[in-house]
Amino acid sequence: MEKEAVEHIRIKKIRSKEISFEEDLLACEEPLEILIKLPGTSEHTAPKTISITMRTPGADSDLALGFLFTEGILTDFSQVAKVAEGNNSTLVTLKSAETVDLSKLERHFYTSSSCGVCGKTSIDFLRLAPKWKSVSTDWKVSSEVLQTLPAKLRDQQAVFERTGGLHAAALFSNSGELLQLCEDIGRHNALDKLIGQAFQNDTLPLEKYLLLLSGRASFELIQKAVMAGIPMVAAVGAPSNLAVELAKEFNISLIGFLKRHGFNIYNEGNCIEI
Amino acid sequence: MEKEAVEHIRIKKIRSKEISFEEDLLACEEPLEILIKLPGTSEHTAPKTISITMRTPGADSDLALGFLFTEGILTDFSQVAKVAEGNNSTLVTLKSAETVDLSKLERHFYTSSSCGVCGKTSIDFLRLAPKWKSVSTDWKVSSEVLQTLPAKLRDQQAVFERTGGLHAAALFSNSGELLQLCEDIGRHNALDKLIGQAFQNDTLPLEKYLLLLSGRASFELIQKAVMAGIPMVAAVGAPSNLAVELAKEFNISLIGFLKRHGFNIYNEGNCIEI
Repeated sequence: MEKEAVEHIRIKKIRSKEISFEEDLLACEEPLEILIKLPGTSEHTAPKTISITMRTPGADSDLALGFLFTEGILTDFSQVAKVAEGNNSTLVTLKSAETVDLSKLERHFYTSSSCGVCGKTSIDFLRLAPKWKSVSTDWKVSSEVLQTLPAKLRDQQAVFERTGGLHAAALFSNSGELLQLCEDIGRHNALDKLIGQAFQNDTLPLEKYLLLLSGRASFELIQKAVMAGIPMVAAVGAPSNLAVELAKEFNISLIGFLKRHGFNIYNEGNCIEI
Repeated sequence: MEKEAVEHIRIKKIRSKEISFEEDLLACEEPLEILIKLPGTSEHTAPKTISITMRTPGADSDLALGFLFTEGILTDFSQVAKVAEGNNSTLVTLKSAETVDLSKLERHFYTSSSCGVCGKTSIDFLRLAPKWKSVSTDWKVSSEVLQTLPAKLRDQQAVFERTGGLHAAALFSNSGELLQLCEDIGRHNALDKLIGQAFQNDTLPLEKYLLLLSGRASFELIQKAVMAGIPMVAAVGAPSNLAVELAKEFNISLIGFLKRHGFNIYNEGNCIEI
């Protein structure tokens, strides 16, 4: 099955006060499991999962081989007997166990992870069970308030923004008040910092607030919002197809490309008042 | 030791034909090891590494707790006995092993990874040994050619760029010819795809080319460039402090904020002709 790199979707587009329905393109995001199979009859013969990464489908063999090379597991293409692309998986079969740095392999296989999507033994584990399956929301945010939020975020980011290198995650009330702002070079870290504060202060679920992301909205960010019981996510950048899918599943209001004069609605949910 | 979130650096700034020396700010990027310690006298009492993530220093406890909560390992702050911040590590001690989902913990600890920085048993393993320690370069690229590259990248990205959600990694010759372009929702994946192609075609090291990144330049991207023997990296966005450090260590020419009318030089190396 050929996977697509982009997905077509119908969205509601807000520009000033005009509402239109348009077709939009989403970048596809799906997990790729990279597996290695060693020759021989030992316990190494079963394929081993080296990595699960969220990627845009296409060039999966290139991605798997590039990853194995840049991670120092493979050093030369002559070590490779065969590369087979499966459904969201790529299996790299090696010619000989001797030529591969097995310590690096073990290190990868038996150690820790980060990034929210790694460290799962199979793709099913990408889906976590949230503590709050659905949060009750009795509030809405107007499009006028929404369009003021990116400027408020930038004002608060003033110091760090000078580096041009930091992502921000911020909590806002529906009246447009900035309640909390966290920054990090990794977008998932900025959101973990924000949720980690609420976790310690026992203010979870964050059902009264909307989350503003300074960049794009990926699957892992929506998943973290779901875990924290946040009913609305607004991103300055684009969402991925999987982000939209998850927002629909958990009834999260999801908007993207939020600017001073408009935004796109990818999932309306209960929190948007136009 | 208090870690800084930003670092000051002296850079060479090119605007049109003007060269100036200015102070610039870099977003700091350092690894954080998140560890859990369970009470009791079993083998679980030794702290276990759950994750190593590249983060901006600051709010480390928040980050560790937010990560453990959003990953489903912790469900309530009452499970936590103590949080201790170390040097690039945060140790979360739990009150009781019973309240924690140990299967999730094992899953994290014993499984695979991705993202280029995960899956290392200790912070030392973040540094890989490249196949080509230093590549010989007999070419330079002019600032005129450099400033044409972002537009060339955007032209080629035309189809995918409409989603607004894809990162690009591209190889250029010093005359400004685009040789290869890979895109992905994950910036490390785009670069792995590009290097994976060269790996299969036996065209490594990529010593004749410069790498253009559509976004920011982080440690992991420079490390992948080092592994592939690429002597120059140009980013449309900002580099991190660790990216600059690594570029200096391996004598990689590193520029950031590459636009039509200028760019910043973070490490000059051998490949830039002003």
